Amino acid sequence: MTRTLITGGLVITAAEEMHADVLVENGRVEAVATPGSQQWTADRVIDASQKYVIPGGVDAHTHMELPFGGTFASDTFETGTKAAAWGGTTTIIDFAVQSKGAALRSGLDAWHAKADGNCAIDYAFHMIVSDVNDSTLKEMDGLVAEGVTSFKLFMAYPGVFYSDDGQILRAMQRAGDNGGLIMMHAENGIAIDVLVQQALARGETDPRYHGEVRKALLEAEATHRAIKLAQVAGAPLYVVHVSAQEALTELARARHDGLPVFGETCPQYLFLSTDNLAEPDFGGAKYVCSTPLRPREHQAALWRGLRTNDLQVVSTDHCPFCFSGQKELGRGDFSKIPNGMPGVENRMDLLHQAVIDGHISRRRWIEIACATPARMFGLYPKKGTIAPGCDADIVIYDPHAEQTISAATHHMNVDYSAYEGTQVTGRVETVLSRGELVITDREFTGHAGHGAYTPRGTCQYLH
Amino acid sequence: MTRTLITGGLVITAAEEMHADVLVENGRVEAVATPGSQQWTADRVIDASQKYVIPGGVDAHTHMELPFGGTFASDTFETGTKAAAWGGTTTIIDFAVQSKGAALRSGLDAWHAKADGNCAIDYAFHMIVSDVNDSTLKEMDGLVAEGVTSFKLFMAYPGVFYSDDGQILRAMQRAGDNGGLIMMHAENGIAIDVLVQQALARGETDPRYHGEVRKALLEAEATHRAIKLAQVAGAPLYVVHVSAQEALTELARARHDGLPVFGETCPQYLFLSTDNLAEPDFGGAKYVCSTPLRPREHQAALWRGLRTNDLQVVSTDHCPFCFSGQKELGRGDFSKIPNGMPGVENRMDLLHQAVIDGHISRRRWIEIACATPARMFGLYPKKGTIAPGCDADIVIYDPHAEQTISAATHHMNVDYSAYEGTQVTGRVETVLSRGELVITDREFTGHAGHGAYTPRGTCQYLH
Amino acid sequence: MTRTLITGGLVITAAEEMHADVLVENGRVEAVATPGSQQWTADRVIDASQKYVIPGGVDAHTHMELPFGGTFASDTFETGTKAAAWGGTTTIIDFAVQSKGAALRSGLDAWHAKADGNCAIDYAFHMIVSDVNDSTLKEMDGLVAEGVTSFKLFMAYPGVFYSDDGQILRAMQRAGDNGGLIMMHAENGIAIDVLVQQALARGETDPRYHGEVRKALLEAEATHRAIKLAQVAGAPLYVVHVSAQEALTELARARHDGLPVFGETCPQYLFLSTDNLAEPDFGGAKYVCSTPLRPREHQAALWRGLRTNDLQVVSTDHCPFCFSGQKELGRGDFSKIPNGMPGVENRMDLLHQAVIDGHISRRRWIEIACATPARMFGLYPKKGTIAPGCDADIVIYDPHAEQTISAATHHMNVDYSAYEGTQVTGRVETVLSRGELVITDREFTGHAGHGAYTPRGTCQYLH
Amino acid sequence: MTRTLITGGLVITAAEEMHADVLVENGRVEAVATPGSQQWTADRVIDASQKYVIPGGVDAHTHMELPFGGTFASDTFETGTKAAAWGGTTTIIDFAVQSKGAALRSGLDAWHAKADGNCAIDYAFHMIVSDVNDSTLKEMDGLVAEGVTSFKLFMAYPGVFYSDDGQILRAMQRAGDNGGLIMMHAENGIAIDVLVQQALARGETDPRYHGEVRKALLEAEATHRAIKLAQVAGAPLYVVHVSAQEALTELARARHDGLPVFGETCPQYLFLSTDNLAEPDFGGAKYVCSTPLRPREHQAALWRGLRTNDLQVVSTDHCPFCFSGQKELGRGDFSKIPNGMPGVENRMDLLHQAVIDGHISRRRWIEIACATPARMFGLYPKKGTIAPGCDADIVIYDPHAEQTISAATHHMNVDYSAYEGTQVTGRVETVLSRGELVITDREFTGHAGHGAYTPRGTCQYLH
Repeated sequence: MTRTLITGGLVITAAEEMHADVLVENGRVEAVATPGSQQWTADRVIDASQKYVIPGGVDAHTHMELPFGGTFASDTFETGTKAAAWGGTTTIIDFAVQSKGAALRSGLDAWHAKADGNCAIDYAFHMIVSDVNDSTLKEMDGLVAEGVTSFKLFMAYPGVFYSDDGQILRAMQRAGDNGGLIMMHAENGIAIDVLVQQALARGETDPRYHGEVRKALLEAEATHRAIKLAQVAGAPLYVVHVSAQEALTELARARHDGLPVFGETCPQYLFLSTDNLAEPDFGGAKYVCSTPLRPREHQAALWRGLRTNDLQVVSTDHCPFCFSGQKELGRGDFSKIPNGMPGVENRMDLLHQAVIDGHISRRRWIEIACATPARMFGLYPKKGTIAPGCDADIVIYDPHAEQTISAATHHMNVDYSAYEGTQVTGRVETVLSRGELVITDREFTGHAGHGAYTPRGTCQYLH
Repeated sequence: MTRTLITGGLVITAAEEMHADVLVENGRVEAVATPGSQQWTADRVIDASQKYVIPGGVDAHTHMELPFGGTFASDTFETGTKAAAWGGTTTIIDFAVQSKGAALRSGLDAWHAKADGNCAIDYAFHMIVSDVNDSTLKEMDGLVAEGVTSFKLFMAYPGVFYSDDGQILRAMQRAGDNGGLIMMHAENGIAIDVLVQQALARGETDPRYHGEVRKALLEAEATHRAIKLAQVAGAPLYVVHVSAQEALTELARARHDGLPVFGETCPQYLFLSTDNLAEPDFGGAKYVCSTPLRPREHQAALWRGLRTNDLQVVSTDHCPFCFSGQKELGRGDFSKIPNGMPGVENRMDLLHQAVIDGHISRRRWIEIACATPARMFGLYPKKGTIAPGCDADIVIYDPHAEQTISAATHHMNVDYSAYEGTQVTGRVETVLSRGELVITDREFTGHAGHGAYTPRGTCQYLH
Repeated sequence: MTRTLITGGLVITAAEEMHADVLVENGRVEAVATPGSQQWTADRVIDASQKYVIPGGVDAHTHMELPFGGTFASDTFETGTKAAAWGGTTTIIDFAVQSKGAALRSGLDAWHAKADGNCAIDYAFHMIVSDVNDSTLKEMDGLVAEGVTSFKLFMAYPGVFYSDDGQILRAMQRAGDNGGLIMMHAENGIAIDVLVQQALARGETDPRYHGEVRKALLEAEATHRAIKLAQVAGAPLYVVHVSAQEALTELARARHDGLPVFGETCPQYLFLSTDNLAEPDFGGAKYVCSTPLRPREHQAALWRGLRTNDLQVVSTDHCPFCFSGQKELGRGDFSKIPNGMPGVENRMDLLHQAVIDGHISRRRWIEIACATPARMFGLYPKKGTIAPGCDADIVIYDPHAEQTISAATHHMNVDYSAYEGTQVTGRVETVLSRGELVITDREFTGHAGHGAYTPRGTCQYLH
Repeated sequence: MTRTLITGGLVITAAEEMHADVLVENGRVEAVATPGSQQWTADRVIDASQKYVIPGGVDAHTHMELPFGGTFASDTFETGTKAAAWGGTTTIIDFAVQSKGAALRSGLDAWHAKADGNCAIDYAFHMIVSDVNDSTLKEMDGLVAEGVTSFKLFMAYPGVFYSDDGQILRAMQRAGDNGGLIMMHAENGIAIDVLVQQALARGETDPRYHGEVRKALLEAEATHRAIKLAQVAGAPLYVVHVSAQEALTELARARHDGLPVFGETCPQYLFLSTDNLAEPDFGGAKYVCSTPLRPREHQAALWRGLRTNDLQVVSTDHCPFCFSGQKELGRGDFSKIPNGMPGVENRMDLLHQAVIDGHISRRRWIEIACATPARMFGLYPKKGTIAPGCDADIVIYDPHAEQTISAATHHMNVDYSAYEGTQVTGRVETVLSRGELVITDREFTGHAGHGAYTPRGTCQYLH
């Protein structure tokens, strides 16, 4: 296999910043040394002077090809993982879905079939449990053993994904026993659906009402409830896509009490707001996702949560639907707009911009986007860092390049960008996945099928 | 009508302590004057020297003749109100029950029929709503207008009284509009029922497991959820029978934030504990009620809550079931024990003992047992105080008498006392209900049918 | 002595609202009866129909004739107490001052000499302790015994009133033993004085800098410190003139923990703000007092604190200095502006306006302005309520009259009003002090010397 | 210079655990590689199989030769740094002391003179400022520029080290400007000294009274005050030797609010308690230090704080006084016992024991003992980690060896051990300081004078 030497860059991990040469062989990092100190020979030398050498991003929350509201997320595993690579992400953890009434296994098999042979980068799976019962509880043990170690439950979407508090408690108890991690969509969907019906009955059908009915207080309520159920079950908890500062407060309180509770937010909650949901001509539909975008003032709270470590991970919840033909299903009824937004390609860049804006440090950038998601979901140190022995998933990042985010130039299979026209500083130059060049000087040089399924260990914050 | 003069006592209300003569005419307090200052003549003079002259107690939470678990609470309106009078309580607010599927009205009519002509003291009704829907929501408006201004919902007992969060939200919205007050049984019954089944499956059938599965954290969770739903609805909230300090913390937090949230506790939570639930030979069954008794250390938190006004009311949740034949239904399965305890006769005495023990002041005793329940449920100043114009519901209380609480001497129709053998200082001597002697020097001189139905105004803490 | 009958008014106390006749004899309330029910004869009948009959106000914080910064507060006990009566206040508690080095006794004697024979209404004294040492600690015991039961300490004004934390601790320990109540001026004056010097050095001499340097955080810090010292000493604490929401938060936290901690605010913090301090042409000097006025957003927090009972008392901290000749001493140096504002005449009216504005209820108005200050400082029920046996300090208040506050019409001896031009609804019509008419249909009918020194018991919230 | 290869160990840093070979040359880490992958030659090969390879400890709080209470800390820079090396610590930051009235410079010069040529490991200095004034404030700027970037102030010890709140505020403002970090001894010494005098007057002279008078509430108070002053000054804050859970709560609150506030605790607070202070025959004197040991229940709070990162650093506050002749100065008067305890040699081992006991993870062990103190005080990555380019301060640690801590075997110059008889698992085998062997297979092979003064950058958590 090719021996690659990356010279002269600033290697940044969650823990260190060092000028160092990185030697890659057999798909792994072989050694790290002070620049020029070793007389290493290599088949390929990448000059990273003036560049950052960072671990490939780990996006712990994507939904490729997800069926939702009668349509499918528009990125396949092929298009979605290529876009991820373009954006400096080298691992995704996607969600396999149990269909109500079916076994977890059949859902997982279906998702394996979708992904197998199609991915440009490595991937793993979480499991969405739509139906907690004696049989699926038993299946959970097996899945943990084979590397699907996290299970998503929903406190919203009754009739589809919704679990009641008794089901949640049982799943948490099981996870407490088998080492699994429960991931929670924390919104009180039962109460929200009342507000949805009342809004529609009042003729409030525009996308912006999506944000009004899915109230911050009802995200906070569900977050608190999930925490208490986890506490009763003696299990850890990971709350996905936290968007409301009131929900963050509940997480912070629990963590201060020493509970094993974790929180993820997404770039859309950090950079967008209800102002976007109010864009005219049904334009707000582009930004319909759940939890919804919040008023602008929540952003500062989320950034602070990322700094104080009350939030640990930034994932994308990438779930793209084209405006034309998909988002439009909800014209005249916001509740029919497919929920989700594209973003897998933009995450690393947007968070680098946050470094420039002073919200977070460079090391924290790598921590929330690479190292912590890898640890959280049992992939570390294979993924998420640069150190001897780890997978050579490495990004050469140019911190000075300027770019403008746009649907015209992005690689995701969706007809709009949520960040259209946003200017950011910093750009991915070259991406290695297990030592192979996937992006080379801003050319795609990888191929569908390179990406390998990666079974995971259990959450590394619990031992 | 008889003109009565009460002389020389220490008149205690929630607000004042004063040596004063009290003149009663036409069933009402006519005047209050410095002792001996007025040359009042009267048909009847009661010498209250060395005694307290206090407002009759208002017990805002009783369940006479309640059907529960295939049996009925053992006190009828007749026996229960007589016992109340013996204990210095002159008004009860009982709960009319909507049967699932039936109208609120038919439930209310049924309860009127049970009580009418049978009560020894005045009474009013709350309404238990078992089925929140368009029709019952409409009925709520009418009930508020006719004096049934409070509605109890349950977050526990699925299939019987349980309302889901959407139903709760709708009822709260309606109450927010029509001036009604939502009373909440705050326990996460869905999660608790999972724990019940698991305990029974493990062979844990003794009454003490009732206390273990109904976890304090799940009372706190439901309390928090009820508060958030009320906040979304823009409605006030009254949480019944708070027993866990964690639940109290949620109330305190909400009140500190200025939310119109209120809390009630009961003597059993202040004086009893899980130690009682663990009494041998199925003896713990006597203490099975929900929310359950808590470990002893919760008591101090509840007393503090009463002092800091994070809790405002002490009611009894009087719901007696005989040990023999009723409580025994749950031998071998704690979940079949009828939930409830006797207490309507003991409340005023136990709280006076708390004055002696230094937990609360004399005025606070009257406030939590008379004045605040009257205000909370729209009966003030007709009930709950002694002042010109108010109903002459007056108790002559001997603060120095000693008594021992016992089933052998109590007047409730139940074969055990939850406080058997407890010695307390203080005793009711004489009780007037609207100027009529109901108890005279520790003789019952009233009669069933004296007690009148008393329509209520709306909560007086909201204006 | 004259027998007076007040008929047909709405009697409002902290606890009750009732239409009642009030019979006054021998300077005390003799009886209260339902309107027209008693065939009382009287020398004087006051028709209070359409009016409120309320207890005279108790202003627990005034500084008549206070020497400060080389000048004296411009109201004498005569002018100040007349103005108080005009405003419906029938008792003041003024502060006797210990001069550094002198005995408490000589300060108290001096203040008795100033007040004796000059007051139009009743008065009592707190004692300012400028010099905590073995000798003054011993004197405190004697003062408590003779009715001076509260002692003010300062965490500001080094060299004048300042006590260090060791002195504060010792005084608190003593108060914990002898039943006295420590009143605290809670500002970190040592740190503030650094900021004052820095501001002046930067040329920031305008009155508005007074507000900027006396930071809310430094009020909160001192409040927290005073609470902790009181907790170590095992003593209660009363914090005067709370103005910052951050300080209020500290009080609320302590009270939630069950500590005997109390807080007072003043009308100026509820109705005025730093906007006033920024009035041009040195106009801000009129509003210079310490703690200082805060930005407008603190007002809502203070109102909420009054509703949640985290604040219990509204006093005036009346300490008037004329703009001309007194406030002007600080032209060119805000630190030389005498600290203090007039207000003893405006308190009852401003708080009634708050009732109309919906901030507080009518009963809460009387509670924070009459009943609680009387209880807090050991004057209840002699002062602060209307009930048989209490002093006949009664105000006939017209809730519908309109008035405009102005220096042109007020009776305080000061050349400006802090509320100039403010329109309020409600006006004092007639005032009785111990049964004597002091104000009669908006005529002053009292006289200097009617007011009697009133020794006080200890704080009634501690038993 | 010698080229050293460390093979086959488990390299543990704050961020990673990896089996790796470490190549050392020119006193620095040259490269890190997967085991056996490179054909490196070396002068010296250390076989670290079955061992941990960890960064040398950074003890950010020592007091060698400190004059205190008329005597001197018993370890010189020579004996103390040798003992440190034995314990796996390769850098100390000691405190230079300004004498009251003298310049900072002269204090710093004196400490340089003490240390120069005598240290076995590298060292740096903080500066104790005893006298904040215009001149010392100006000196602070210069010290920051030359590498003394942190300044300790005392809220205790009036007349010796004490600064008043105005001085503290000024020093904080200056640090806010020049990049310095204020370190605070947070105890309300003014109030404590009152309690000391009262205790002695009651005849309470035993060492255990030292713990009783220095109350947890007064540590919490001072901590809160320091935080508020830092907030006003816009400066960061590092609180030394946190021992009370109430103080920790204040830090946690401030950090949750996003303030740049940091906290250190020490092994004695984690492993010892007031039980030790109560040892008979004046034995408690061995444990007299300030802040004092707390009741046992505080330990759990401190461990939790270390896990939640509310506390970031564990230092020793090493300040040994012999029992015989030094501690004995306080027989009959606990206030005369020199304050301080030995510990520089025991820190790494005790914290490794905490790993075994499950309090913290291995990586957290290195973080709190090596990496964070280095970052906090501007020494990273030179010190505190193992990565290409950093100083080769490396410890070969045997995680399985058993040892018993004892004065009989320790190398500190003090006649007792605070942990006498304590059995711990884990032991330092070999220590490199800048590539030189200081301890070799449990032999001291270093020499006084090897240790170099190391100027520091500013706190790395503020950028």
